[in-house]
Amino acid sequence: MASNTIGQVIRCKAAVAWEAGKPLVIEEVEVAPPQAMEVRLKILFTSLCHTDVYFWEAKGQTPLFPRIFGHEAGGIVESVGEGVTDLKPGDHVLPVFTGECKECRHCKSEESNMCDLLRINTDRGVMLNDGKSRFSINGQPIYHFVGTSTFSEYTVVHVGCVAKINPAAPLDKVCVLSCGISTGLGATLNVAKPAKGSTVAIFGLGAVGLAAAEGARIAGASRIIGVDLNSKRFNEAKKFGVTEFVNPKDHDKPVQEVIAEMTNGGVDRSVECTGSINAMIAAYECVHDGWGVAVLVGVPNKDDAFKTHPVNVLNERTLKGTFFGNYKPRSDLPLVVEKYMNKELELEKFVTHEVPFSEINKAFEIMLRGDGLRCVIRMDA
Amino acid sequence: MASNTIGQVIRCKAAVAWEAGKPLVIEEVEVAPPQAMEVRLKILFTSLCHTDVYFWEAKGQTPLFPRIFGHEAGGIVESVGEGVTDLKPGDHVLPVFTGECKECRHCKSEESNMCDLLRINTDRGVMLNDGKSRFSINGQPIYHFVGTSTFSEYTVVHVGCVAKINPAAPLDKVCVLSCGISTGLGATLNVAKPAKGSTVAIFGLGAVGLAAAEGARIAGASRIIGVDLNSKRFNEAKKFGVTEFVNPKDHDKPVQEVIAEMTNGGVDRSVECTGSINAMIAAYECVHDGWGVAVLVGVPNKDDAFKTHPVNVLNERTLKGTFFGNYKPRSDLPLVVEKYMNKELELEKFVTHEVPFSEINKAFEIMLRGDGLRCVIRMDA
Ligand SMILES: NC(=O)c1ccc[n+]([C@@H]2O[C@H](COP(=O)([O-])OP(=O)(O)OC[C@H]3O[C@@H](n4cnc5c(N)ncnc54)[C@H](O)[C@@H]3O)[C@@H](O)[C@H]2O)c1
Ligand SMILES: NC(=O)c1ccc[n+]([C@@H]2O[C@H](COP(=O)([O-])OP(=O)(O)OC[C@H]3O[C@@H](n4cnc5c(N)ncnc54)[C@H](O)[C@@H]3O)[C@@H](O)[C@H]2O)c1
Ligand SMILES: [Zn+2]
Ligand SMILES: [Zn+2]
Ligand SMILES: [Zn+2]
Ligand SMILES: [Zn+2]
Repeated sequence: MASNTIGQVIRCKAAVAWEAGKPLVIEEVEVAPPQAMEVRLKILFTSLCHTDVYFWEAKGQTPLFPRIFGHEAGGIVESVGEGVTDLKPGDHVLPVFTGECKECRHCKSEESNMCDLLRINTDRGVMLNDGKSRFSINGQPIYHFVGTSTFSEYTVVHVGCVAKINPAAPLDKVCVLSCGISTGLGATLNVAKPAKGSTVAIFGLGAVGLAAAEGARIAGASRIIGVDLNSKRFNEAKKFGVTEFVNPKDHDKPVQEVIAEMTNGGVDRSVECTGSINAMIAAYECVHDGWGVAVLVGVPNKDDAFKTHPVNVLNERTLKGTFFGNYKPRSDLPLVVEKYMNKELELEKFVTHEVPFSEINKAFEIMLRGDGLRCVIRMDA
Repeated sequence: MASNTIGQVIRCKAAVAWEAGKPLVIEEVEVAPPQAMEVRLKILFTSLCHTDVYFWEAKGQTPLFPRIFGHEAGGIVESVGEGVTDLKPGDHVLPVFTGECKECRHCKSEESNMCDLLRINTDRGVMLNDGKSRFSINGQPIYHFVGTSTFSEYTVVHVGCVAKINPAAPLDKVCVLSCGISTGLGATLNVAKPAKGSTVAIFGLGAVGLAAAEGARIAGASRIIGVDLNSKRFNEAKKFGVTEFVNPKDHDKPVQEVIAEMTNGGVDRSVECTGSINAMIAAYECVHDGWGVAVLVGVPNKDDAFKTHPVNVLNERTLKGTFFGNYKPRSDLPLVVEKYMNKELELEKFVTHEVPFSEINKAFEIMLRGDGLRCVIRMDA
């Protein structure tokens, strides 16, 4: 990287979404230098997550276009803004859609990762410092997405949303840790915390659910019961340690009863990764009384209500929810990368597709078809 | 105690409920010797709990009469049945409405106290061993109540429902630990586990709620917010460490919002001790996102539904429920008695009334009027 870019506007390629649902267009954009507490990153690999597609389709929210999507990525620090002391050009990093300011009550709490300053904000398309975008094309600002906008060769991110990782880690693999994989893995390892030998039910066998299953495998669960409405998911799930499968459609009785019968009263832990309110309730009601813990991960609809008989609560079942697997991006992600480096955590099996940046729209097509888990986009190709 | 009663039927006084809602009658009853895994106790003190009154009124359940009520008590072992090795005549004990067999999955779990064998059963009026009652009057069996039936000078209890305690502990005080006080205290100390300096909301300021407040005081909470629909409860509550009061009726907005405003986003912990479904939901929704934990204690109605938006869960709020404060009767109650002996825990303030056994119906009147917290009944008077 030429050091002469520091302090300069960088002209580079970015995939711009001009309109909701229309193919992205690779454009030459101008990327302004980082301001106070900001970092400019050179992105090497980025992967596509449902959330990108969801906001690109813009069916459920106020549309904000033109915009540069992308939030799962790995890159290298190009330059840093004023006040940034713990990152320097050349550092290997993962940008993250949520942040860690290290100063608010959440960042100071051992339990929370919901930073008051940098918590995900999907409506904001600008940087916090000046309320403006760092991207432009011929002077027209292009909006940011969740503070990351990684579908660009260069991007500007708040320092609190950047995890500095082991430079030996292959960025084409660990880039998937920026979002869904860490979410599912942390839901199990940090929140459900199954003991060795315990039984775990995973609702939803997409990338997040399979990462939750990977967490259960790492924790030494003796039985991992995968639950999905789509039986095609079952075959792939075996690679992730899932030992048994239940399709709720195959049964006349509620799936929570099916699981209770399979497990002599209920599983020790459950992790819901579907976004379906029915699955959330079933995930709660299928844990054993006395000690069962259910963890909700899926993002529900606006009008959903979680509903259960309070006796299920009194009988000593615990309900928890998690955001980004309870990981604090800066403090915890480097250690997740180390788990991969130690071969404790397998990431290769999550990367089912790869495309060059010039074919980024193919990644959208693959996801819309429901194929595979993660498509990694190589920026230099 | 004359040792010649061992193995013999004992004739003694008991307060018999012949009919739902009618005053108890002090009768001479015959108490059979304990069978295998049973213990016969001489009760010295017993106190009245809402659950006795509730089943005596028999408005919500199948009536089971004639019956001997009573489940909060302190006494001395008179004799033990076959197979009982860890109790002997003369031991000081608290009988408990739920049990600990020490062999089932719950008893072996560190988290649960919901013993499969001896979990509370309000419908059963007989002993487990032979399905019969140990009480009779002229050959007519009188039913047991929750395995304790302490409104009798002598009673027979399963060994798994008997906590052996420090013989120096005054039974007229520690008898209240058999039920409601331990339930509230344990809900805070064992389940909510507030850190020193944290904020705690207690919903319902009856005996159970005030015991939960006592737990928060012992844990070093900096603010204890009492919530009750009855403002008369507030004055007494001050003795239990409650620092602020909220009557939901005094506000136009939901009490969870009032509490969130008082505490910059929510309390660290809440404990619900009302039985009202609205209070359960409010107790959950008033805890802080990121780290808040709500614990439900109150016994709900059959048709109640706990209902909340799943985003409240995803925002890292935990919902727990507890039965008997998560105490295992035999393993844990002796240590609660020690907390009292060490002056960590105050019990005197819970005992607001005392009556002799001959006037046991007065205890019912006091409770029905809603006066005070616990009325201790002295058996030898
Ligand atoms: N909390 C967070 O921080 C966070 C981060 C990323 C993703 N998520 C959420 O996690 C969820 C899963 O994400 P993903 O990328 O794996 O999605 P995905 O669509 O690939 O997988 C979801 C799976 O759930 C299955 N499913 C749907 N309804 C079901 C039901 N009622 N019972 C059983 N299975 C059912 C689907 O068939 C599908 O296989 C989504 O709701 C997503 O928004 C949360
Ligand atoms: N889980 C267990 O092991 C266990 C054991 C004993 C008692 N309990 C339950 O605990 C609860 C409390 O017992 P108690 O003996 O203290 O009862 P209590 O009737 O003396 O006290 C309950 C208090 O709650 C208040 N209240 C009712 N609805 C309310 C609302 N919506 N908001 C705020 N306050 C409200 C009442 O005014 C009252 O002061 C009961 O439901 C009882 O059945 C549970
Ligand atoms: Zn913060
Ligand atoms: Zn994502
Ligand atoms: Zn047991
Ligand atoms: Zn009771």
